[in-house]
Amino acid sequence: MEELSKEEIANWLKGLQSRICLALEQADGAGKFSTEEWERSEGGGGVTRILQNGNVIEKGGVNFSAVSGKLPENISNALKLPPSDFFATGVSIVIHPHNPHVPIIHMNVRYFEVSSGAYWFGGGIDLTPHYVNAADATFFHKALKDTCDKHDAAYYPEFKKWADDYFFIPHRNETRGVGGIFFDRLTTSEKHSKKNRFEFLKAVGETFAPVYTELMKRNSDKPFSEKEKQWQLIRRGRYVEFNLVYDKGTKFGLDTNGRIESILMSLPAMASWQYNFSPEAGSAEENTLSLLRKGVEW
Amino acid sequence: MEELSKEEIANWLKGLQSRICLALEQADGAGKFSTEEWERSEGGGGVTRILQNGNVIEKGGVNFSAVSGKLPENISNALKLPPSDFFATGVSIVIHPHNPHVPIIHMNVRYFEVSSGAYWFGGGIDLTPHYVNAADATFFHKALKDTCDKHDAAYYPEFKKWADDYFFIPHRNETRGVGGIFFDRLTTSEKHSKKNRFEFLKAVGETFAPVYTELMKRNSDKPFSEKEKQWQLIRRGRYVEFNLVYDKGTKFGLDTNGRIESILMSLPAMASWQYNFSPEAGSAEENTLSLLRKGVEW
Repeated sequence: MEELSKEEIANWLKGLQSRICLALEQADGAGKFSTEEWERSEGGGGVTRILQNGNVIEKGGVNFSAVSGKLPENISNALKLPPSDFFATGVSIVIHPHNPHVPIIHMNVRYFEVSSGAYWFGGGIDLTPHYVNAADATFFHKALKDTCDKHDAAYYPEFKKWADDYFFIPHRNETRGVGGIFFDRLTTSEKHSKKNRFEFLKAVGETFAPVYTELMKRNSDKPFSEKEKQWQLIRRGRYVEFNLVYDKGTKFGLDTNGRIESILMSLPAMASWQYNFSPEAGSAEENTLSLLRKGVEW
Repeated sequence: MEELSKEEIANWLKGLQSRICLALEQADGAGKFSTEEWERSEGGGGVTRILQNGNVIEKGGVNFSAVSGKLPENISNALKLPPSDFFATGVSIVIHPHNPHVPIIHMNVRYFEVSSGAYWFGGGIDLTPHYVNAADATFFHKALKDTCDKHDAAYYPEFKKWADDYFFIPHRNETRGVGGIFFDRLTTSEKHSKKNRFEFLKAVGETFAPVYTELMKRNSDKPFSEKEKQWQLIRRGRYVEFNLVYDKGTKFGLDTNGRIESILMSLPAMASWQYNFSPEAGSAEENTLSLLRKGVEW
């Protein structure tokens, strides 16, 4: 018997949400997170925290939810599970900064269990620079690798590849950004207990704030041009395409009649689509596009 | 034997594209359509025509395509057809104006046939005002009804309801706009020959330009505020949500590896997402939201 309870996991995640919001507010220097608590009629609920029009952050969301009830049939079918009760809890973050030299970031850490006793952890962190900066990408990946390596040397290579494959926009033939880590269905194995898996999830969650606030600090005072702002809006358009067409979390939310404003907090305050836009040869924009591919070792 | 050939249909549609572009350029007064011809490696191709930064039109696309080859298996399965060769031709239009008082419009007219001899026509026109104007909506629907009634008195009521059901955003519980007509799988019946169905398709195609240029003329000189512009960007965000999450034409294009810039020409130059935006009580924005529902008889 493993004694780690779903309440313990949910409580820890709720605390993580508060700590991350505090760290982001401090790094932003002006913006404050609003707080909406919501309930789900079928069971459970969440707390949606949104920061709009800060100093550094234009629009950011840090969501916590812990929902339960009967597993919807389309989902039990997709997961190849018998009809079950379920419990799911997680923290989801997307941050869109003002300055095109500060990257967009996304994190999700989550826990899922069904009444039969099956459970798993999942999540990931990935970085979407409007302009790829090799030093920042290397710093980001090294922090993720360090976190992974403390728990299992096999984690980083596997989860880095998983992120490359997951955060990919087939119709553009480009990755969403410089990747990161992505993992799912982590459950008890010969090597890892449930407690052990949870410790890894916690470590991923705690990696977010120091890494992203450092990237804010490094880049938020850089000057930028109107042209760079326009490029940022185009890259945000790709972010919208990924989230609305491919992202499984968004699909899950829409399919289960989730709280729509919490699900779509991931979309930017402003985005642009220009027909057939193509960056100039040799430009920083072209360089970024050339790096939006799988398998780059940062 | 029916003698109407696929070449005749495609040629007529290609001519329609030219006539509509000309009418839109004249009504715009400044903007000119660019022209890209493209080929599809598996067979056929198209002509994509885009107008950006005109007087009235901010971004508009008028696409023609005529593609052929082996029907992709996922599509033959979805259509419950045996493996076949297919031919598909159509004109697709989306126009995003600068002025929030000018509505967004969409039209599609298309023809599809498979090697077994089965064929059908499909299409529709729908209007998405940022601010619903009852006189404009009534004018628009009356024009569509007049076109329909000349061919079959049953068309308008059926196709108007079909548009209400199709152009609906379930996760927002709102229609995309004030609807219009939508139809699919029109084939030979007791009442209608193939020629007869094509005459209807032609009439729908010819309804577009006079109706939309009139709506441009009526509204493009109206003054608008920063707040109204912001609302327009939010409504465009909903348009993006519909097209990327639900629109079958967009899905078909992405699933069949279509020319991505032609498919996504429907997305606006600029769109916005504000967390939990809610219009003021009694405002024009609130009035518009209250009218974005099925079954309104204009």
